[in-house]
Amino acid sequence: MYRPEIKVIDCTVRDGGLMNKWQFSDEFVRNVYHALSKAGVDYMEIGYLSSECMFSRKEVGAWKFCAEKDLQKIIGDSEKKIKLSAMADIGRIEYDDIPMKCDSSLDMIRVACYVHQVDAAIDLAHHCIDKGYEVTINLMAVSTVSQRDLEEALQDLAKSRVPIIYLVDSFGFFYSEHIDVLAKKYMESLPGKTIGIHCHNNQQLGFANTISAIINGINYLDATLYGIGRGAGNCPLELLISFLKNPKFKVRPLIEVIEKEILPWSKKIDWGYFVPYMITGTLNQHPRTAIAQMESDDPDKITDFYDQAISLPT
Amino acid sequence: MYRPEIKVIDCTVRDGGLMNKWQFSDEFVRNVYHALSKAGVDYMEIGYLSSECMFSRKEVGAWKFCAEKDLQKIIGDSEKKIKLSAMADIGRIEYDDIPMKCDSSLDMIRVACYVHQVDAAIDLAHHCIDKGYEVTINLMAVSTVSQRDLEEALQDLAKSRVPIIYLVDSFGFFYSEHIDVLAKKYMESLPGKTIGIHCHNNQQLGFANTISAIINGINYLDATLYGIGRGAGNCPLELLISFLKNPKFKVRPLIEVIEKEILPWSKKIDWGYFVPYMITGTLNQHPRTAIAQMESDDPDKITDFYDQAISLPT
Repeated sequence: MYRPEIKVIDCTVRDGGLMNKWQFSDEFVRNVYHALSKAGVDYMEIGYLSSECMFSRKEVGAWKFCAEKDLQKIIGDSEKKIKLSAMADIGRIEYDDIPMKCDSSLDMIRVACYVHQVDAAIDLAHHCIDKGYEVTINLMAVSTVSQRDLEEALQDLAKSRVPIIYLVDSFGFFYSEHIDVLAKKYMESLPGKTIGIHCHNNQQLGFANTISAIINGINYLDATLYGIGRGAGNCPLELLISFLKNPKFKVRPLIEVIEKEILPWSKKIDWGYFVPYMITGTLNQHPRTAIAQMESDDPDKITDFYDQAISLPT
Repeated sequence: MYRPEIKVIDCTVRDGGLMNKWQFSDEFVRNVYHALSKAGVDYMEIGYLSSECMFSRKEVGAWKFCAEKDLQKIIGDSEKKIKLSAMADIGRIEYDDIPMKCDSSLDMIRVACYVHQVDAAIDLAHHCIDKGYEVTINLMAVSTVSQRDLEEALQDLAKSRVPIIYLVDSFGFFYSEHIDVLAKKYMESLPGKTIGIHCHNNQQLGFANTISAIINGINYLDATLYGIGRGAGNCPLELLISFLKNPKFKVRPLIEVIEKEILPWSKKIDWGYFVPYMITGTLNQHPRTAIAQMESDDPDKITDFYDQAISLPT
């Protein structure tokens, strides 16, 4: 029997946009939106919520902002069957630039933060709750955080009004037993709250770790079409939807939109399993050096890259 | 603490050869052999053991046969620090064509069979044991076998003298809970025997399922460099070696040989995660239709492929 509490959040445009500065055409975003709706996906994270004064529209596409006029271009006149989400980074959005829920097509705002930013994240999250949104806090890079610091952050989150807290494997370092331990810790530390998971695929464990999370009772699941995303990418949505048993989920619309919109991108930009990403993942390092390697003139010089990666100061 | 009973078997040449009819140069095979030796890998499966009368050397390379003279070209005069294995398919090798262990550089013979071939496999395996080899039986495609047939096969294997039995996910269908259940079944049904695992990567679960197998006490682990292999390929060896804790394992020689020998092949032939392989994996189908799709003029017509795959008679 499937678990009706499970919700799937597609991050194709938001996370995939990290690779091309959100320079997706309206047609791309619209086709993804309709495919996700048909597939029964619960949420589409369509981009970031940022203040226009902080980034130039000459450099980044519309989905760095998620302005209402741009959302309207995607939704059009059709009935909205999928909830829309935007991610907010601490310090990149002024509170006054966040519209009231009643004036926005966004349903959910997800606040991403590192452990040392938890107080600021809770403050922003409460602000968004008070404006009428569903809200999550996504605690990033916990694979590099001490047990004490993580426990303190979880205690703070437990006291907050934020109902959904995400476990994020930013560096693609975790394997199933890490997820088992952390899922239990999050559950115990955050009674009454819903837990989510966002995995990266550096060790080809994005989907597997999402399954481990499901087994451990985690209910909010992030994925992207064909795993698109920065670096090694994410849990592939088509695998997750094929795995889940809720009959509302359909994989065919996802295959169709991968064929139409994602495969063409896969010829232009690389994401997925490449040795540099695998190396930073196994070493629990930020993927920035691997991304630079993949964008260099010699992406295949992986032995030199390995030697540099293991000699980095920890 | 690491588990000293764990043995790693690299199948790069044997399984990768399914993609190019074992047309690897001697230099390729020699470089892989030396890299695996340096990395502390326990076994190199260097090819198939086939009778020369059954295949033409005009069509297939040397590693379809594993003749002693070809093995000698790889080993040369250096000290042999890694055990060599060859796979035998039922019906493709005459008993008389198998040399005595004392006349061969092979250490292990692995007999691959389907459930209905178990009696023939045990007979061949006993013959190889009596000739002096280490021997395994690799029971393929168990994801499509009824519980009764699997249990009968395991009962037969339990009564045999074959010390190592493999769980093989031929279609890349299993996820961690399947592995949990099957590992327990194999352990209980085969007291005193060692269990091995060979995973395919159709759902990006090859490495994850190998980890699940380790957690369940499975000790013989198959992998290939960069996951090379037919279709979606296998558990990537560099991931497995990075994961294992035995200090004898070194990942650097693997990165080096991937750079030198495997990345060039990755520009010529496709293996790994592609939607057609994902579709046959999730549907528990043989990958032959997906392989044909990938080799067709229109490999990206994945929606049509999906429609055909779901309409196949079961």
